Amino acid sequence: MKNNTVDVCLSPQLIDLYDLEGKIVVVVDILRATSVMTTAMAYGAKEIIPVEKLDIARTYLDKGCHLCAAERGGDRVEGFPLDNSPFSYMNDEVKDSSIVITTTNGTVAIKKSMTAGQVLIGSFLNLTSLANYIQTQNQDVVIHCAGWKGKTNMEDTLFAGALVEKLQSTHGLGCDTPHVTLNYWESVKDNLLHTIENSSHAKRLNKLNIKKDIAFCMTLDKYEVVPKLVGDKLIAV
Amino acid sequence: MKNNTVDVCLSPQLIDLYDLEGKIVVVVDILRATSVMTTAMAYGAKEIIPVEKLDIARTYLDKGCHLCAAERGGDRVEGFPLDNSPFSYMNDEVKDSSIVITTTNGTVAIKKSMTAGQVLIGSFLNLTSLANYIQTQNQDVVIHCAGWKGKTNMEDTLFAGALVEKLQSTHGLGCDTPHVTLNYWESVKDNLLHTIENSSHAKRLNKLNIKKDIAFCMTLDKYEVVPKLVGDKLIAV
Repeated sequence: MKNNTVDVCLSPQLIDLYDLEGKIVVVVDILRATSVMTTAMAYGAKEIIPVEKLDIARTYLDKGCHLCAAERGGDRVEGFPLDNSPFSYMNDEVKDSSIVITTTNGTVAIKKSMTAGQVLIGSFLNLTSLANYIQTQNQDVVIHCAGWKGKTNMEDTLFAGALVEKLQSTHGLGCDTPHVTLNYWESVKDNLLHTIENSSHAKRLNKLNIKKDIAFCMTLDKYEVVPKLVGDKLIAV
Repeated sequence: MKNNTVDVCLSPQLIDLYDLEGKIVVVVDILRATSVMTTAMAYGAKEIIPVEKLDIARTYLDKGCHLCAAERGGDRVEGFPLDNSPFSYMNDEVKDSSIVITTTNGTVAIKKSMTAGQVLIGSFLNLTSLANYIQTQNQDVVIHCAGWKGKTNMEDTLFAGALVEKLQSTHGLGCDTPHVTLNYWESVKDNLLHTIENSSHAKRLNKLNIKKDIAFCMTLDKYEVVPKLVGDKLIAV
């Protein structure tokens, strides 16, 4: 008997259809917001402040925050020191720092998840650690895919399937969407990088010359950190 | 070189993100609205009038329309003579008739598709005929899944994948979602009925004792008719 369920929401525009109260929501934006957050946390960031609007991010910039990242449409926003590449967070400056991030999709999905019992950050980089943590919590789970400007996308859908696969032993499938994502994941997981290189977002990012970001973001279980939202900040659980 | 594309929208709540102008939109609500419409057309219905709101459907009832169907939550609405089972449309009364239908999801999706170049009705029952017709049209396609009250569902997602498979030779994949649905379809198509019997909507319908409706709606290529919206009425192309 499985006491808990796992459900999947494929777009922030559908999240209002899900009852999040008392549940764990896993926010996922593989390319690249939640991969960046996982990486920064793994490199010792004290906290990450996800911000939905650019003008709010600018107030942190004006107050002298020097680890402030803004991305729109895949590209760094002018005037902000940091971009949305995980490689920009692999340095000593990140250790014990506060980082402010606003992105096209990922930070929107975080804001739309705030009525949940717990909001966690998911990426392929921390997949197993995330699943292990969830399995200590005895709570229902909703995997919230950030997608691309409201549309469903390949990489977040695949991650949802990968996490459903991990949680299957403890969590029943809450609805049809976990079944869709699980079967999709199982059908392409042995050919993951090639699959993702043909995704619409990878094609978008390739124009920006960041092919190595994509390969990195598809790496499984590189880190053990699980970022969790406490108040309006992400910290490691 | 493929001149056209096929894209998939998994919920009526996401359809506003798609540019439908000049495109073919295929509306799909496998359990059971679009299967019913296909069946009624195959049994010779002259036209089907899809209606979004119950009170509009009631005005047809008041005017003496005796082939008037209303379904909400899977069940027939009191006061309406017809339900949402394809078996209710397999009789002589249907021939040359005008039928009015309002359902929980399917008729909503039709109304939200009306800015398209052509609106067609898709079901497993007319899959190949539908694909063949589309391939004579030289237009981009958006497959619009009705889902369940805004959420993505199993059977409409599978149909989208089945139609993408049929159109692959002429239509490139427009975005990530066709890839998701195609792989999902390919992974379960040899075990289709068993898969669908575990869907949330099948479980909902089983409570209503209509297991045979589900098996029927999953039958491939039973009919050759392709219903198309002309004005506010569906007729056979």
